[in-house]
Amino acid sequence: MYERLKGFRDFYPGEMSARRDAIDTLEDTARRYGFREVGTPALESTRMYVDKSGEGIVEELYSFEDQGGRDVAMTPELTPTVARMVVAKQQELSKPIKWFSTRPFWRYEEPQQGRFREFYQTNVDVFGSSDPAADAEILAWAADAMTDLGLTGEHFDFRVSHRDILGGLLESFDGCGSPDSQAGRNAARSGDADVDTEAAIRAVDKSDTLEKAEYHGLLTDAGLSYDQAERFDDLLRVDAEDLDELVEFAGTDRVEAAVTNLQNVLDAAEDFGVREYCTLSLETARGLDYYTGVVFECFDSTGEVSRSIFGGGRYDDLIESFGGQPTPAVGVAPGHATLSLLCRRAGVRPDEELATDYYVLQVGDTRPVAARVAGDLRERGHVVESDVAGRSFGAQLDYADSVNAETVVIVGEQDLENDELTIKDMASGDQTQVPVDEFPGDDDAPTYEDIA
Amino acid sequence: MYERLKGFRDFYPGEMSARRDAIDTLEDTARRYGFREVGTPALESTRMYVDKSGEGIVEELYSFEDQGGRDVAMTPELTPTVARMVVAKQQELSKPIKWFSTRPFWRYEEPQQGRFREFYQTNVDVFGSSDPAADAEILAWAADAMTDLGLTGEHFDFRVSHRDILGGLLESFDGCGSPDSQAGRNAARSGDADVDTEAAIRAVDKSDTLEKAEYHGLLTDAGLSYDQAERFDDLLRVDAEDLDELVEFAGTDRVEAAVTNLQNVLDAAEDFGVREYCTLSLETARGLDYYTGVVFECFDSTGEVSRSIFGGGRYDDLIESFGGQPTPAVGVAPGHATLSLLCRRAGVRPDEELATDYYVLQVGDTRPVAARVAGDLRERGHVVESDVAGRSFGAQLDYADSVNAETVVIVGEQDLENDELTIKDMASGDQTQVPVDEFPGDDDAPTYEDIA
Repeated sequence: MYERLKGFRDFYPGEMSARRDAIDTLEDTARRYGFREVGTPALESTRMYVDKSGEGIVEELYSFEDQGGRDVAMTPELTPTVARMVVAKQQELSKPIKWFSTRPFWRYEEPQQGRFREFYQTNVDVFGSSDPAADAEILAWAADAMTDLGLTGEHFDFRVSHRDILGGLLESFDGCGSPDSQAGRNAARSGDADVDTEAAIRAVDKSDTLEKAEYHGLLTDAGLSYDQAERFDDLLRVDAEDLDELVEFAGTDRVEAAVTNLQNVLDAAEDFGVREYCTLSLETARGLDYYTGVVFECFDSTGEVSRSIFGGGRYDDLIESFGGQPTPAVGVAPGHATLSLLCRRAGVRPDEELATDYYVLQVGDTRPVAARVAGDLRERGHVVESDVAGRSFGAQLDYADSVNAETVVIVGEQDLENDELTIKDMASGDQTQVPVDEFPGDDDAPTYEDIA
Repeated sequence: MYERLKGFRDFYPGEMSARRDAIDTLEDTARRYGFREVGTPALESTRMYVDKSGEGIVEELYSFEDQGGRDVAMTPELTPTVARMVVAKQQELSKPIKWFSTRPFWRYEEPQQGRFREFYQTNVDVFGSSDPAADAEILAWAADAMTDLGLTGEHFDFRVSHRDILGGLLESFDGCGSPDSQAGRNAARSGDADVDTEAAIRAVDKSDTLEKAEYHGLLTDAGLSYDQAERFDDLLRVDAEDLDELVEFAGTDRVEAAVTNLQNVLDAAEDFGVREYCTLSLETARGLDYYTGVVFECFDSTGEVSRSIFGGGRYDDLIESFGGQPTPAVGVAPGHATLSLLCRRAGVRPDEELATDYYVLQVGDTRPVAARVAGDLRERGHVVESDVAGRSFGAQLDYADSVNAETVVIVGEQDLENDELTIKDMASGDQTQVPVDEFPGDDDAPTYEDIA
């Protein structure tokens, strides 16, 4: 009669249980790194997103005027909200500020595999440190979270880059390179190239999905000569050990600083034990958004999941642009839909089966004893179900089976006359009697095995 | 620069940690009862709420037209959504269906103490059982959740009633009672009273907040005579042991069935060990909403928190009205804002302090060793922070103190020359050396005490 909205999902218990496992894994890992959970609103002023991303963002938003005439939007991402929170308490928060949270976000986009209009992310951010160790800790958390999910280096790959390498190289093609550098000499030869850096970065960002000719076409449209486009493309394919070639080519402080910073982040990642998951990939640009330093995207190593699984990076200017004191920041936000595609592909998707430790089955008028037994088992932390529907013996046993109960405790009128309970192992079907006042006894999790 | 919206809240880590404790407690208790978590959308068709609650609901909703022209609303409550989910899979779900979830809901209401426009609830429902044990299991879960939070019978009170007792008594005043009953004889004497049952129930629902004269005025407005209003008021104050008086008074099957059902629910609550938290309170009507049987509300026993903390009850007609097969249902939805008011009043509010097991302090170029130590401790499940901001010794120690680190592991260049680490207990300030390859060693959680 009523339909779920397009791009929104219902999670029934099996699927929810797998999702909860994944969320718990990411959050436990974040807690162990000393990230602290924050709670954030689902609605914010639309202006916050327009100021950050331009008017164009509005058509992707669930935005509306509320009953009080405010222009509000269902949050499409977390970063502006946490930036607002940092600004609001910038004096009292001891830095570095390390926050995480898992929640839904909303974007009015066309749903496709791994993309929904309502989607869940675990956001993890460090505010107040420009040290390369902060970038590396974000990479380390992400890698640990992935391996805690059961994934390995065979399954995923962090493609790491630095925004200023792309920007700086393009700038040097634009004739702004040092005249002593190779780029400066090239630019002098070719005249003022007047490169549209943003258009060129957009082209790089899409290069994965384009034919080479088309890609080079976009680069030349952006103001590079044909030779420069070829050279630029070659430079972006440099190995991590040869990053110094870029410094030499550009001959600018900007590229030198970026290369040094990227090398320092990779060195810290080495110390943190996660360098092996990182590949240098200078094409990784993370759009034109607010990133200012190291950026990275996680990909399926096999390419079977063709989209980026998630991404992150450094955004040192956002807090200041939100009216705060200059505060460097770096973060990452794994989305659970794409992460679950990767886990499924890798065969490590968490179990969707329901788990039940005990089903306490009542036969006849035995509720007081059954309730006492169920209560005792629950106090030990077990998942315990009991009849709340006045079902027959057979119906209760079927239900216990449907919720994968490991042990069934049968509380029958006849048994009780002998002061006994029946303990049934559901896997084998074996059962045995136990005195009613010895169950559950001293054992934390008594099973048929323990009693028989 | 940007403001949070009115009625919405930011939860910084301390407050969030207390809130997470409360949510975990309610959810763990639900899991132990065999309730299964579900995940649900934040947006639904507005029509679902209008059909259930009438056009008037719209002004309380965050509703709008989405980019695709759909009339949508941010969910103001969970029940219609889970009803929709039950209907969508009614064939395949094994019954009883026992679901829980914690999430935010949204209503455009005037914020006041314990009421926000964005508010969090843990919803717990049983579908597919009309047995009184199902109602009692909801009461038992709620009582266990409250006591697991540290509350006791001194702090809270479940006021329990049955919708058909109120309705049935009013009906009998309306001349529909059995002619052999006392009500029937009364009605015959006074002529056809033509009672507006809904108006009378609304009056009862508000009776707590009204002067007696005003309350009786509303009852007479609803069609009761002055004597009937007095009598009705007396009847509602009956003790639990004397419920049979109501059956005798009304002389209708409806009141008899309701009284029997309520007694059975209270008997099951006795078996489940939670009868002591329940008080008979026939004024408890839970509005005019979809409730059909036993209803209850949780109140602060001292009355200091004057609002109802939360409520629940049986709603057997909703699934059918949503196009499903007739499916009895009973549920409850504690709101975390009022619950936190009660916990604060009772002095059992969870701790807002941050907890950190270890801070690994780096002095000089010791990151590889510090990272190894931090990693080993994290693998044992501890919360471990380490420097990611290139801070000085003193700044790191201040930070460790600000996050309440219990133990600081100092990894210094000089110590390392002797292959040692320094273990500092933050409470006492005591410290000692330990060989670097013996830490963390075999102990799960090595402290200064263990080593010195």
